[in-house]
Amino acid sequence: MSLSSAADKVFEVGKRRGFFWQSYEIYGGLSGMYDLGPYGMMLKENIINEWKHHFIRKHQEIMAEIETPIIGPEVVYAASGHLESFTDPIVTCQRCGRKFRADQLIEEATGIKVEGKSNEELTEIIRKKNVRCPVCGGELGEVKAFNLLFKTQIGPYEGSNGYLRPELAQGMFLNFKRVYGVMREKLPLGIAQVGRVGRNEISPRQGMLRLREFTIMEFEFFFDPEKPGHEEYVERVKNRVLRILSSDDRIAGRKEPRTLTLSEAIEGGIIKTPWLGYWMVISQEFLKSLGVPEENMYFEEKLPEERAHYSRQTFDQLVKTERWGWVEVSGHAYRGDYDLSRHALYSKQDLAVFRQFETAIVKRRKKVKVNRAVLGKLFRERATDLERTIYSMDPEKVEAILKEGLALEIGGEKIPPEAISIEEVEEKESGKRIIPHVVEPSFGVERLLYVVMEYGLKEKEDRLILSISPRLSPIKVAVFPLVEDDKLKSLARKIYEDFKQRGIPAVYDEDGSIGRRYARADEIGVPFAITVDFQSIEDGTVTVRDRDTWKQERVPSSGLTDSIAQRFMR
Amino acid sequence: MSLSSAADKVFEVGKRRGFFWQSYEIYGGLSGMYDLGPYGMMLKENIINEWKHHFIRKHQEIMAEIETPIIGPEVVYAASGHLESFTDPIVTCQRCGRKFRADQLIEEATGIKVEGKSNEELTEIIRKKNVRCPVCGGELGEVKAFNLLFKTQIGPYEGSNGYLRPELAQGMFLNFKRVYGVMREKLPLGIAQVGRVGRNEISPRQGMLRLREFTIMEFEFFFDPEKPGHEEYVERVKNRVLRILSSDDRIAGRKEPRTLTLSEAIEGGIIKTPWLGYWMVISQEFLKSLGVPEENMYFEEKLPEERAHYSRQTFDQLVKTERWGWVEVSGHAYRGDYDLSRHALYSKQDLAVFRQFETAIVKRRKKVKVNRAVLGKLFRERATDLERTIYSMDPEKVEAILKEGLALEIGGEKIPPEAISIEEVEEKESGKRIIPHVVEPSFGVERLLYVVMEYGLKEKEDRLILSISPRLSPIKVAVFPLVEDDKLKSLARKIYEDFKQRGIPAVYDEDGSIGRRYARADEIGVPFAITVDFQSIEDGTVTVRDRDTWKQERVPSSGLTDSIAQRFMR
Repeated sequence: MSLSSAADKVFEVGKRRGFFWQSYEIYGGLSGMYDLGPYGMMLKENIINEWKHHFIRKHQEIMAEIETPIIGPEVVYAASGHLESFTDPIVTCQRCGRKFRADQLIEEATGIKVEGKSNEELTEIIRKKNVRCPVCGGELGEVKAFNLLFKTQIGPYEGSNGYLRPELAQGMFLNFKRVYGVMREKLPLGIAQVGRVGRNEISPRQGMLRLREFTIMEFEFFFDPEKPGHEEYVERVKNRVLRILSSDDRIAGRKEPRTLTLSEAIEGGIIKTPWLGYWMVISQEFLKSLGVPEENMYFEEKLPEERAHYSRQTFDQLVKTERWGWVEVSGHAYRGDYDLSRHALYSKQDLAVFRQFETAIVKRRKKVKVNRAVLGKLFRERATDLERTIYSMDPEKVEAILKEGLALEIGGEKIPPEAISIEEVEEKESGKRIIPHVVEPSFGVERLLYVVMEYGLKEKEDRLILSISPRLSPIKVAVFPLVEDDKLKSLARKIYEDFKQRGIPAVYDEDGSIGRRYARADEIGVPFAITVDFQSIEDGTVTVRDRDTWKQERVPSSGLTDSIAQRFMR
Repeated sequence: MSLSSAADKVFEVGKRRGFFWQSYEIYGGLSGMYDLGPYGMMLKENIINEWKHHFIRKHQEIMAEIETPIIGPEVVYAASGHLESFTDPIVTCQRCGRKFRADQLIEEATGIKVEGKSNEELTEIIRKKNVRCPVCGGELGEVKAFNLLFKTQIGPYEGSNGYLRPELAQGMFLNFKRVYGVMREKLPLGIAQVGRVGRNEISPRQGMLRLREFTIMEFEFFFDPEKPGHEEYVERVKNRVLRILSSDDRIAGRKEPRTLTLSEAIEGGIIKTPWLGYWMVISQEFLKSLGVPEENMYFEEKLPEERAHYSRQTFDQLVKTERWGWVEVSGHAYRGDYDLSRHALYSKQDLAVFRQFETAIVKRRKKVKVNRAVLGKLFRERATDLERTIYSMDPEKVEAILKEGLALEIGGEKIPPEAISIEEVEEKESGKRIIPHVVEPSFGVERLLYVVMEYGLKEKEDRLILSISPRLSPIKVAVFPLVEDDKLKSLARKIYEDFKQRGIPAVYDEDGSIGRRYARADEIGVPFAITVDFQSIEDGTVTVRDRDTWKQERVPSSGLTDSIAQRFMR
């Protein structure tokens, strides 16, 4: 095998066998854009399904999936802070006009880590270290902010700007109140979405890992900060072990994650809110179901200067890859009430919810009461105004005056004591209004697809085998007639048709030697290969070959679709 | 029920019960954009699944699904013709500056049908009929073309324009050759995609029926125009009946569709290519599976002036709706080789495929042969040039000269007859290069969602029931404890958890009277409601109530998930 690295293998098989390739290939390609071919598409669908299983279906009592548009009006991204903050530093060569991402350029040219530095600081480093255009050697200009939102115009009126969403989150925040209503006004409530986003990267590299358009699986998990309601959920997984490299550890120079149980991480204050930790555990389970072993992933806490503008605490879930090292496959942000508060401010809508107390709180308080008959007789047309003023006064102060037997003086008028009395009333507070807090787990699908393929691709006797879980395999079964023979072919076709009718993705293949056909199936990860031979005609049995062990077993062909389906269906 | 029309009911239930509502509601809404709530999202997913079942999974030997980006570079939409042709006529009020779709404005103001008229003709009608601004009464300007592509910029360089796709098709055309390779170079081949598109409508109306962003399910079906390979497929459905209103009938003033079998329509030349007809039959089946009876749909052929620029023949599949009359739910276009030819031209890539003849064609032809030894001796360094010239000559003419015993004269040199001979050779042509033709069935998902809800919503005893196929129902089962009792609740919870673990969408509901709970479930289309009562505790049976008949049956609670699942799974 001439491909030396795992990444090379993934890209070679990806392209040749129809998983993925760069978009707009016949026009020379467009960086940061990838197409998914037939098998890539099926693999992606299976990854999304696995995600929905772990996060939505297994939590359906507290989770709802929605869909919102990709294009949004300007006010949404003003409120979200993206118009202002969703930028990368850009620098232009003064000689050739080429544009570069300034932080990357500096890091590559000087090795200096510049995350969190301002554009002025970056410009200064460029000047001091004499960083120049890597293409023509020309002098570089000032570092500026380049906004990564794709901008467009909605409708025929100039100035009615629209933007492509760079994340799914705003769709969930804007709809929180409505979905909360549909879900019978209960917290906690997760609102999930799977969909496309756009980020207008300055110069995307790293193949499928940094894209200008890709698919996110994300949910906003809303909870009452005073009563998160996590106990029952956290209890079930409190002893699960997480590998965490905290920001304190990072600042102290530590490179290796620590191993902690969920309860240790929550109680030790390393994870700032229990739901954040709960979903980190589920995310770890999800990644394991995609074929990544626990020791090849950990959660790294972002430093304050690395965090997005809305975040109180963020963990990245990192997975080890061969070429790119530790790669972020998901982000776990504690967004507090930032988003709902911002949208409440910008939309002037009330986005708070009412939390009922378990038992209403009863408060006794004093209240001024006016004897209208007396007041009316004394002051006539002025009486209404006076009454309003009296009601607005502090009952305690009014009582003190009355106790001394004095008259209340308002704007020169003297109100005699018999026109006013003080009462004590009981008031029930049945609950209070709160703005929910949010934790947000967010996954990039294309990255996961790459990770699944890198972890899945194995070499055996000079062949490539995509050894992924049968649940993830694009094609579940291949059916072959052993040799060129009409009877064998017709039986094999019939078996293929049975799978097709059940809606199980299958291939029928009669071209070339049986060995070549097995090899073709192995490469796209078909877990089961059924071969029809002459014995099949006699006794109705077929062989089922396992992709990973290459072992064959003889099984009856009746009931075959069911027995195969059982091996990958839940 | 105070809602008088079916559309009102759909929109009321849609919003109140969380199917769909206008996007960006808290910011006052954005026309042409809709959000899907939890139940709408599940319904949409089930509609897409149903489509994939009919078109992809049941045809998986000739069908592949891919995914391509929404944003594309300018050259793609130059080649596709959209930059030039994907426009609507727009007119601006000279007084207030408001903009209108000119054709709609004229039709509403004058009743004149203007489809296919040029912008100059539209301007003339506005002048002649004195059509004015419907808002301020001001005078209207010239009618212009407004391009409906959403435009953006890709990357940091000004002028590197990108566009949001207005259909999915270009993604399939650009990838045809690669997918054809992955699918082992066989025709016919369908390349399918489900995804979002954007159309920057001037003033979208009609709620979910005309959107600026929506989801399309579409495939490009590539076939060899000389050997379409449809026989086996068409044979199976040739006697299926289609309701068709042809363009000839329309021109002749006919309003009602005719009823024809597929073979009649193909053989009568009403459908111009068999695959177009085949997929129309499957589309009709698909719509029936969504709950639309055959008599409420037909296929209307577009008139030449109504067709898109790429189409040789187009049928719209129309479904009757209460408020909007006959509404297009799918389009069936015969695109010929327009798209592959255009992209071949613009990309300078060879997008043709090689078709092997079943038996190679053998052709005999004459060939000039040069005796190099003789030629070399006579002409030395000039021999090579002369040889090349001789080979480029017409063998027939050379033979005629030789037959007369003359010498061949080239540039003053005389080539003696013994230096040349004429041979007869056999040449095999094993195939030829062709550009496949394409038929394209294309469905709008949100329209179908509306149609499913309009056809599904029934009124019974003053209640609304979403009576849709259990396969389409967002939630498959509701579980209720009959009354407030811990034992009943705990058994009901357990049953609910069983469904959840199986990944079957279910709800557990203990709030309010059992009647109210049934009503809530009916309204979102839950087909089966399981109630746990005191008898359940004694003998392990529960009641299953049918949403449509309201009949209850008593069944054992063991094996309940399986027996319920069987009612909606394939």
